Amino acid sequence: MKNIISCLFFLFCFLNVFAQQPASFVNPFIGTNEMGHTYPGATVPFGMVQLSPETDTIQYSIGQGYIKDVYRYCAGYQYSDKTIVGFSHTHFSGTGHSDLGDFLVMPTTGKVRLNPGTAQNPESGYRSRFSHDSEKATVGYYSVMLSDYEIKAELTASERVGFHRYTFPESSETNIILDMVSGIYNYDGKVVWSSIRVENDTLITGYRQTQGWARERTMYFAMVLSKPIRNYGCRDEAKVVYYDFYRKFNTTKDFPEMSGRKLKAFFSFGTKAGEQILVKFALSSVSTEGALKNLEAEIPHWNFDLVHKQAENAWNKELNHITIEAPEEKKIIFYTALYHTFLSPTLFMDVDGQYRGLDHNNHTARGFTNYTTFSLWDTYRALHPLFTLVQQQRTADMISSMLAHQQQSVHKILPVWSHYANENWCMIGYHAVPVIADAFMKGITGFDSQKALDACIASSTYEPYDGIGDYMKFGFVPADKSSNAASKTLEYAYDDYCISRMAAKMGKQEIAAKYAKRSEAFNLIFDSGTGFMRAKRSDGTFQTPFDPWSTEKQGFIEGNAWNYSLYVPHDPMKLISLHGGNKKFISHLDSLFNVKLDEKHFGESEDISAAGIIGNYVHGNEPSHHVPYLYSFAGAPWKTQERIHQIVNTLYRNTTDGLCGNDDCGQMSAWYIFSSLGFYPVCPGSNEYVIGSPSVDKATLILENGKQFTITAQNLSDKNIYLQQIRLNGKPHNQFIINHEDIVNGGTLEFIMGSEPRK
Amino acid sequence: MKNIISCLFFLFCFLNVFAQQPASFVNPFIGTNEMGHTYPGATVPFGMVQLSPETDTIQYSIGQGYIKDVYRYCAGYQYSDKTIVGFSHTHFSGTGHSDLGDFLVMPTTGKVRLNPGTAQNPESGYRSRFSHDSEKATVGYYSVMLSDYEIKAELTASERVGFHRYTFPESSETNIILDMVSGIYNYDGKVVWSSIRVENDTLITGYRQTQGWARERTMYFAMVLSKPIRNYGCRDEAKVVYYDFYRKFNTTKDFPEMSGRKLKAFFSFGTKAGEQILVKFALSSVSTEGALKNLEAEIPHWNFDLVHKQAENAWNKELNHITIEAPEEKKIIFYTALYHTFLSPTLFMDVDGQYRGLDHNNHTARGFTNYTTFSLWDTYRALHPLFTLVQQQRTADMISSMLAHQQQSVHKILPVWSHYANENWCMIGYHAVPVIADAFMKGITGFDSQKALDACIASSTYEPYDGIGDYMKFGFVPADKSSNAASKTLEYAYDDYCISRMAAKMGKQEIAAKYAKRSEAFNLIFDSGTGFMRAKRSDGTFQTPFDPWSTEKQGFIEGNAWNYSLYVPHDPMKLISLHGGNKKFISHLDSLFNVKLDEKHFGESEDISAAGIIGNYVHGNEPSHHVPYLYSFAGAPWKTQERIHQIVNTLYRNTTDGLCGNDDCGQMSAWYIFSSLGFYPVCPGSNEYVIGSPSVDKATLILENGKQFTITAQNLSDKNIYLQQIRLNGKPHNQFIINHEDIVNGGTLEFIMGSEPRK
Repeated sequence: MKNIISCLFFLFCFLNVFAQQPASFVNPFIGTNEMGHTYPGATVPFGMVQLSPETDTIQYSIGQGYIKDVYRYCAGYQYSDKTIVGFSHTHFSGTGHSDLGDFLVMPTTGKVRLNPGTAQNPESGYRSRFSHDSEKATVGYYSVMLSDYEIKAELTASERVGFHRYTFPESSETNIILDMVSGIYNYDGKVVWSSIRVENDTLITGYRQTQGWARERTMYFAMVLSKPIRNYGCRDEAKVVYYDFYRKFNTTKDFPEMSGRKLKAFFSFGTKAGEQILVKFALSSVSTEGALKNLEAEIPHWNFDLVHKQAENAWNKELNHITIEAPEEKKIIFYTALYHTFLSPTLFMDVDGQYRGLDHNNHTARGFTNYTTFSLWDTYRALHPLFTLVQQQRTADMISSMLAHQQQSVHKILPVWSHYANENWCMIGYHAVPVIADAFMKGITGFDSQKALDACIASSTYEPYDGIGDYMKFGFVPADKSSNAASKTLEYAYDDYCISRMAAKMGKQEIAAKYAKRSEAFNLIFDSGTGFMRAKRSDGTFQTPFDPWSTEKQGFIEGNAWNYSLYVPHDPMKLISLHGGNKKFISHLDSLFNVKLDEKHFGESEDISAAGIIGNYVHGNEPSHHVPYLYSFAGAPWKTQERIHQIVNTLYRNTTDGLCGNDDCGQMSAWYIFSSLGFYPVCPGSNEYVIGSPSVDKATLILENGKQFTITAQNLSDKNIYLQQIRLNGKPHNQFIINHEDIVNGGTLEFIMGSEPRK
Repeated sequence: MKNIISCLFFLFCFLNVFAQQPASFVNPFIGTNEMGHTYPGATVPFGMVQLSPETDTIQYSIGQGYIKDVYRYCAGYQYSDKTIVGFSHTHFSGTGHSDLGDFLVMPTTGKVRLNPGTAQNPESGYRSRFSHDSEKATVGYYSVMLSDYEIKAELTASERVGFHRYTFPESSETNIILDMVSGIYNYDGKVVWSSIRVENDTLITGYRQTQGWARERTMYFAMVLSKPIRNYGCRDEAKVVYYDFYRKFNTTKDFPEMSGRKLKAFFSFGTKAGEQILVKFALSSVSTEGALKNLEAEIPHWNFDLVHKQAENAWNKELNHITIEAPEEKKIIFYTALYHTFLSPTLFMDVDGQYRGLDHNNHTARGFTNYTTFSLWDTYRALHPLFTLVQQQRTADMISSMLAHQQQSVHKILPVWSHYANENWCMIGYHAVPVIADAFMKGITGFDSQKALDACIASSTYEPYDGIGDYMKFGFVPADKSSNAASKTLEYAYDDYCISRMAAKMGKQEIAAKYAKRSEAFNLIFDSGTGFMRAKRSDGTFQTPFDPWSTEKQGFIEGNAWNYSLYVPHDPMKLISLHGGNKKFISHLDSLFNVKLDEKHFGESEDISAAGIIGNYVHGNEPSHHVPYLYSFAGAPWKTQERIHQIVNTLYRNTTDGLCGNDDCGQMSAWYIFSSLGFYPVCPGSNEYVIGSPSVDKATLILENGKQFTITAQNLSDKNIYLQQIRLNGKPHNQFIINHEDIVNGGTLEFIMGSEPRK
C-alpha cells in the first residue's frame, strides 16, 4: 500500500511538473535588488500598466546630477528595503535612467497622512513596513501584507488597467491615498500640472503632466472604487492662488475637482474586519474619457481572480513561444528572462486606437498597434532580433509605431529612445534602423517598406543630430566636435550597413552602395599603433591622452576602448584583419577576458554590478554583448562556447540580485535567451546568427507561421559545454552561422555536446 | 454750372451716406480708454480670434490682490498709452477681470530683444512707440505704424485665424518675436507649460497652458509665414533642466522644438524697403493639427485684403440685423454698441467641430456650434435677450454649449462664467437659467428643452455652491454663512422665477409651483423698517451695522442696498407694494437718482468711471440696469423716459472713454441698443419688454423668420423725449409693456414724441 501511495504521489508530482506552465517558473523578484532595475509588480505582456510597489521615492534637486539613491529606484523597488510607499501604475523594466511611477495609490488606516514619510521612521508618513515572508510575486500578480496597517494588498492588471484588492482590518478610518506628486526620478517641481475630479462617490478621474526624462509627458486616469467614498479631501502642497474664485467651494474637502502642481488626495471609508475594497485604475495617454473606455472594455466587472487568471493565461500564451527542457533552476532563470523580454516596448494606445503622439496631438493608430518605450541603443542588439523569431506581428506593429513617431517628429527622424509621446534622446546612434532593416531582411511584413527606408535615410542624414553632419563631412565623428565620437562612428557605421542591406534588397543599388561605403567608417578610427579604435579629431589626429582602460573622456559611452574597439558587428573579418589576423585577435580577446582591472577603472564601469565584469569584459553594459561570439569568427569557436557558458552560468542567477547590470528593457535577458538556445544575432540585419553553445537540453520555438524549430543539446552537462557536432535538419552543419530562414522554415538543430573543445 | 456741380456733389454725398453700410459707423476705439475695457483690434462676429495690440503687459505677484495697473489692461489696450508691446490673439471685450492675451507677436528690426521693455524706456525691449495719427481701427481691421522700427502693422482676422501684414523698411535684421510668456493679467509663473516647434521654415506650431482666471487653459496655434525664416532662436527664461539629454542639439538656436515655462522665440529675415511679410496665426483649443486645419479651411491663400473684406462683409451682415435712421454721431455710438454686443460669447471649436471641454477632454460638437466666454451675471440681463431678437440661431447654439458645459461639469451644473473650457466661478447666481428660460419662453428651438430644464434644476439645487444649500434650508441665503448673501437671495429668487415659468410652459406644474414659491424669497430679506433689502442672518435677524450707501460688507456685490434693493425684476408690483405704493416708491427712486454721494461711498463703487453714476444710481455696474424702467411700473413712465434719455445721451459717447464702466462682454452696449430702440427686457423670461423712450428716428429689426419690425419715433428731438402716443401696427398701444411676440411677428411700433411729459 505504501508503495502504491508512493507511486501515486510520484506520478502526481511528475504529471504536475509535466503539466506545469512556463509562467509558473517566472520569478519576478530576479533583478529587483541592486542593478537589475526590474520591478516585481503586476503586468501583462507588453502591457501599458505596470502596477508595482515603490519601496522608496527619492526626491532630488535640479542640478544635482547623478545621484546613487535616485538611480537605485529606476524601477521604484529595491528588494533590500523594509518599507513600501505605495503602488504606482507605470514602471520601466531594467532601465539605467528613469521616470514614470504615475499615480501612487496607498491604502492606510487611522489618521490620514499625505506624505510618504521616511524609511527610517515609517510612522512619519503613509508608508508601511513589510516583510518578504508575506510577499508574493508571480506573472500578473503581486501581493504583500502592509504590516503597519494589517492591510493585505493584492495587485493584478489587464493591458491598460491596474486592479488593486485591499483586505482591511476593522477600522473606522480606512483610507486610500492618491499621491499625484510621487514619482520615480522625482524632483521638486517635476509635476508641471495635475488634476483630480471626483465624478461620483466611486469614480475619480484626472491627469498629470510631468517634466522629467520625458520633457512633457501627460497621463490620464480613471479610478473606480468598489465601495462608495464616505469622505474625501485633497491638498495642494504648492498652492499658487491667482485669484481664488474657487473660494465658493471648500476645495480641500469634498472639492470635487482640484488642479495644481502638488496634489495629494485621500478617500476614506469605514471597514469591517476582512472587508475588501477593490480599485480599478485605468490609464490613457489621451483623455480621462479614454481611460474610462479602457476600463470598461477590459475590466467591466469586479472579479479580481478572473483578471489575475487572464493575466496568467496571457503570459503562458507568450512564454509558450519557447518551450524548454532543463533543470528547474534553469527554467526559472530562462522563463524569467523571457518574461523580462516581453515587458517592453509597452502598449501605448487606448482600446479605440487613440494615443498621444510626439507632436503632442492625439492620433489614431490605423492598421497597427502603437507602442512606446523603445530603448533602442540597448534593444536593437538582441531583444528586437528575438522578436523577429517569436513576436513577428508585434515587430511589425513596433516598426509602424516608430514610423508614426518619425512622421510626428519635428526632426522627421526615427526614435532614439521613444518615451510616452516623447523623444528623450538617451544614448547614441540611430538604432531604429537595425530594428527595421533586420525585420525587413527577415521578410517581416505589415509596415510600409518604402516609408521605412525613407525614414532610415532621414535619420542617418539629419545633420543637427549628434554629429551626423560632421560624420558625413569627415567620414567619422570628430572628437573635437562631438562627445562619444568614437562610439558614434562605430555605431553609425553599423547602422549604415543595415540601410545598405535594406536598400540592396529593395533594388536601390545607388543607396546601397552609398551606405556600404559609409559602413566602412570604422576603418578610419582604428589605430593600428595601439590596436584600438580611438576618438579622432577633425584634423585627422587621434585624441590624446589615450587610456584604453578608461571609460572617461575617451570618446566612448558606457564602455572603454577595450570593449568598444570590438564593435564592428557587420564586418568582424575586417576587424580581425585590422588586428593582424586570427591569432593576434584571439590573443587580444583573451586579454580582454583575463585581465584584472585595477580599482579605479573597475569603478568607472557604469550600470553594472561587480558580477557583471569578467576581466575587462563588461557584460552589464551592452557594447560587448556580441564579443564572446567573435572568437568563432577567428576560428576559435570553443572559446566562444566557454565564455558563453561562463556568462550564462555566473552572470544570470535565480536571486533578487541575479542580473549583473540593468536589464535595459529586456536586452540583457534577450542575450540570455539566445545564448541559452545556442546562437546569437551578432549582426542584426545580416539574417545570420552565430552559434555559441546551448545550455538547455531541448528547446522548441513555436513560430507564428505554424512551424516549429527544435533545438536539442545532447549530452549537455556542466562539463559538456563544447560542441562536438551540429546537425541541421539531420544533416551535418559545419559552420558557426545559422541563417534566420533555417529557423523560421522549421526543423531541428541538434547540438552534440562534449567535455573537450573541438578545435 | 456751379449749381449743377453743387447738386451733383450733394447727390453724391447723399447717395454715399444712404449706401453707407453699418460697419462704416463702427468706432472700435470707443471704450478703449479707462473703464470700457474694450479692445480696438481685428475680429469677426463672435470670432475665436481677437487679434489686437497690447499697449502694456503688467505683471504682478501672486497675493498682491487687486492692482489698478493690472485691471486697466483687461483688454490689453489703453488709449492713453504711447507704446505698443505687440499683437496677441485672444482678448475679452469689456470684462472687469481678465486673462488671455495669447501668443504675442511683435515685428522689430535690428538687434533681437526678447523682453518687452518699459513704456518709459521702450528701447529697453522689443516694444515700439506709436502715434494715434498713424492708427486705424475699423471692423475686422487694425493698423498702426510702429514708429521705432518704421514698420507698418496691419491686422485682420477670420473666425479662427489672425492675419498679420507687416510692411518693413530695408533691414538686414528684421525679426518677428513670438513671446509665449506675455499675457493679460500676467504673473510670474502663470504659464504652466508651453511648446514651440519649427516644423519647417515657414510653419511654426505650439501651445501653452496657463493658470490664471481660468485654472487650466490650453491653447494651441499654427503660425505660417509668407517668407522663409533665415534664422531663428528660442530662449527659456525659466529653464529647469531635469537632465539635459537635449544637449545633442543647440536648443537655443535652430532648436527646432522647445518646451518650457518661459519661452521666447524670434524668427529673422532680411527685408527690402517696403517688403511685406505676412503671418497667418490660427488657434485651436484641441491641437496644433486642429489649428492647422482651421488655417487651411479659413485662409488657404495670402490675400490679406480679401480676408479684410470678408471680415467687413461678415460684420455688415450681422449689424444689418438692425438698421436705424439717426444722426451720424448716434449711428456711430449705436453701431459700435451693436458691434460690441456681437463680440461675445466667442466661438470655441475647430472647423471639424472639435473643442476642449470642461472635463479637459476633447469633444466634438454634434449638431451645434460651441461657444465660450459666457459672462452670465452680466449678460443675462440684456445681451442674451437682444440675441433672442437678432441672434436666434446663435442663441440655440449658446444654450447647447451651456448644456454641454453642464454635462462635462463635475458638479453637473450650468456655467457661471464659462471661460475657454474652464469655469472661473466669477460673480454669483445661476444665470444660465434666465438665458435658457428666456429663449425657451420665446419659442427658440434647437436645443433639448427637457435636458435644459433638468440642467436648470440641477444648478439651482446644487447645495455646495455658493449658499444654495442654505438658501433651500432657510429660504434665503444667510449672511453669516455666505458672502454677498442679500445679492444672492435676490438673484436666486429671480432665477427661480425663470425655472418656474419654463416648467409651467412644459406642463410641469409641481416644479413650477415649487420654484414660484422659491421666487418669493426676496420678501424675506426686505426690511420694512428701512425700506431696503438687507442681508439677514440665519437666526432671522438683519445683519448690522447697516449702511445702505456702502458697497462693503453689506451682503451685496457690485452694488449697495440702494441699488440692489430694487432687484425684483419678476415682481416689481410686489416691490412697489413693499415700499408702500407708487408714490413712496417713485419718491424712493427719485432719491436714488438725485442724491449726492459722499466721496467715500463714491469711491467704493467698483468698475465704473465717475461718469457712470447719476446720484447714487450706478450705470457702470449691472444690478441697476433695469431701475430707470421701474418708474413705469409705478405709474410714472415719463420719469423712465427722462432717465433713459439722460443715460443714453450722457453715459454713452463717441470717445475713447465713451463707456462709463466695463462693457462686460456687451451687456452695457446691449442696454444701449434696447434703450435706444425704446424698450428694455426688465425681466427676461417674462416675454415682456418695458417701454422707455426711443432715441433713434427709425429702426428696423430684420428678423431671422424673414419678418421685419419697424420702430419710428416721430418728432424726436433733444427736447421731444416724452412719449405722447404709442401705436402698434397702427393701433393705439396704451400700455408700457410690449410683448416679444408682437416684435417677432413683424409689424410697426410708432412712438409719437413730444416735449412735455404725458402724465
